[in-house]
Amino acid sequence: MANYNYKIKLHNIKAFVFDVDGVLTDGQVISMPNGELVRSFGSKDGFALRLCKQYNYPIGVITGGKSDSVLNRCKALLINEYNIYQSAHNKLPLFLEFCKRNGLEPEEVAYLGDDLPDIAVLKAAGLAVCPADAAEEVKNICHYISPKMGGQGCVRDIVEQVLKVQGNWVFDPISYSEIWGN
Amino acid sequence: MANYNYKIKLHNIKAFVFDVDGVLTDGQVISMPNGELVRSFGSKDGFALRLCKQYNYPIGVITGGKSDSVLNRCKALLINEYNIYQSAHNKLPLFLEFCKRNGLEPEEVAYLGDDLPDIAVLKAAGLAVCPADAAEEVKNICHYISPKMGGQGCVRDIVEQVLKVQGNWVFDPISYSEIWGN
Amino acid sequence: MANYNYKIKLHNIKAFVFDVDGVLTDGQVISMPNGELVRSFGSKDGFALRLCKQYNYPIGVITGGKSDSVLNRCKALLINEYNIYQSAHNKLPLFLEFCKRNGLEPEEVAYLGDDLPDIAVLKAAGLAVCPADAAEEVKNICHYISPKMGGQGCVRDIVEQVLKVQGNWVFDPISYSEIWGN
Amino acid sequence: MANYNYKIKLHNIKAFVFDVDGVLTDGQVISMPNGELVRSFGSKDGFALRLCKQYNYPIGVITGGKSDSVLNRCKALLINEYNIYQSAHNKLPLFLEFCKRNGLEPEEVAYLGDDLPDIAVLKAAGLAVCPADAAEEVKNICHYISPKMGGQGCVRDIVEQVLKVQGNWVFDPISYSEIWGN
Repeated sequence: MANYNYKIKLHNIKAFVFDVDGVLTDGQVISMPNGELVRSFGSKDGFALRLCKQYNYPIGVITGGKSDSVLNRCKALLINEYNIYQSAHNKLPLFLEFCKRNGLEPEEVAYLGDDLPDIAVLKAAGLAVCPADAAEEVKNICHYISPKMGGQGCVRDIVEQVLKVQGNWVFDPISYSEIWGN
Repeated sequence: MANYNYKIKLHNIKAFVFDVDGVLTDGQVISMPNGELVRSFGSKDGFALRLCKQYNYPIGVITGGKSDSVLNRCKALLINEYNIYQSAHNKLPLFLEFCKRNGLEPEEVAYLGDDLPDIAVLKAAGLAVCPADAAEEVKNICHYISPKMGGQGCVRDIVEQVLKVQGNWVFDPISYSEIWGN
Repeated sequence: MANYNYKIKLHNIKAFVFDVDGVLTDGQVISMPNGELVRSFGSKDGFALRLCKQYNYPIGVITGGKSDSVLNRCKALLINEYNIYQSAHNKLPLFLEFCKRNGLEPEEVAYLGDDLPDIAVLKAAGLAVCPADAAEEVKNICHYISPKMGGQGCVRDIVEQVLKVQGNWVFDPISYSEIWGN
Repeated sequence: MANYNYKIKLHNIKAFVFDVDGVLTDGQVISMPNGELVRSFGSKDGFALRLCKQYNYPIGVITGGKSDSVLNRCKALLINEYNIYQSAHNKLPLFLEFCKRNGLEPEEVAYLGDDLPDIAVLKAAGLAVCPADAAEEVKNICHYISPKMGGQGCVRDIVEQVLKVQGNWVFDPISYSEIWGN
């Protein structure tokens, strides 16, 4: 079923929600001596998320993990703190809460996930996307399987597609640097 | 000999024991300025190990290294501390101790290792598994060589296969989040 | 248009300016618990930049990010602090400032970038170069697309080509160790 | 010239000397906020170096970098501190000092390097080896180009070959754990 008609859906998307491990990252967690888990994020994904901010697409994050590493990265991208859900294993109610809080219907939201805890949300989202290295069960129920892997551009891939069809994949250095500094 | 009849053995496995470097990780150790060694672990492996906990498969770890990085990761996965053996170079006696302590016969335990110190244990275990990038000597004596590399899904691969044939590869968000938080 | 006549341009280059993420690095940023972003750099790129220092090619860095990680790496390579621009999203004016400050025309400077904020500078630079994994829009306007990826040798590739055609790709252990220690 | 008769040379090697970046590591250096450079090492290489210790092959390290990260890793492998040369850019005199100090002729020592500062030493060593991703100038003068890349097994590859032809690629858990702990 994947990939056959997802392009129509790109036009309806008004917000993005992401799982973290294996989506915003390549799935590796660095276990520090003090117990903290540290993650690594992609800068091209980051650029896409900054354009989302500029063009007012709400961003949400729903992850089973919990760390300052993720929180700091989200804050640096100016993701609203009330849209960041950590320690989240039962993800569907939180996804619905995100929709309500941001005045959106689930059909207007794209969700990216890569493993079994993401399946319930993927089934509810308007556009269900996974990276190339997602679990088989996840691939089987997504509208679009990105050719890019987690942390290697799958986020950039779908954000870019949505913003492009909606005429918002536009980088203007002046207005961009008003938000992100110069 | 590898891979020809390992599928029959999947039914008998009641516990998993893992080497760390090159199995739960890709074999890279980050040497920190203070002397600590830091490792990086895969989140999809982590999910599989959380299901093991939920369905009561004991997990053991036997590693030649010693670091808080490994200890913290194991604790986060709720692996019992008495099943974690660090600084372990003569691994077979510790594997047998693991079996005894958990009331298991070696034939009921799957062991994953990738290098020469793992060979004695692999020969004793009920299911001997190694990653695709294991040492040749290790590949030669395993029942199953995973197509996945160390830290890149070999743990997930075999845990998923065992739990599937035993009807336990089932993610239920409610009971899962009771253990792992929401 | 890329790659057809860039070799003529190699002779005119007197300085190099680099974006950081995806050029001097593979684009991954490690988000630390304290909020710092940490990056990883390639040692073969570092060697090329040390030869630049020895043969008096000014080096500049213009990056949207801001971290001590980048600053420290630049200092270790003896890049002049006034040639390091962080938090830079509107990059063209800073590139022109770099040229002025170092007494160079834009046509004498090679610029390496990988994403949309680099495009204005790439159009102004004498030699526009991007890594193999740059954004499509960037690839479309570069004189040379390196076969190497960001952080995996694209910097080394172009610096080596320029220094070679100019007779400066010469390693002399005595004079080299006078600058870099022994 | 590479690879045609290096196998004869394996019999004469009594010691190993290594460059660090791009040989014992994949060449990536992580720049920490405090200015330290952190490196990542391979565990399968580490196992090979532990066997060297057990069978009394002296190990040397000659690197242009300088960090506690490297020093700690070397100490953990019980490499004698007087055989560790950091901040070394003029490497040949230090290689000859290593030979003298350990009572060896250069022809009895294998050297692994990947970049231009290693060339003088590679020409002097009894067995000149580089990883698959070494600089072209280095590949051109080595006896053996490992199919493995830096930090991805090139050290293990050549150490294993030398120890095997000399009958010392033997892991005995009892004597091994007497040195490395259990």
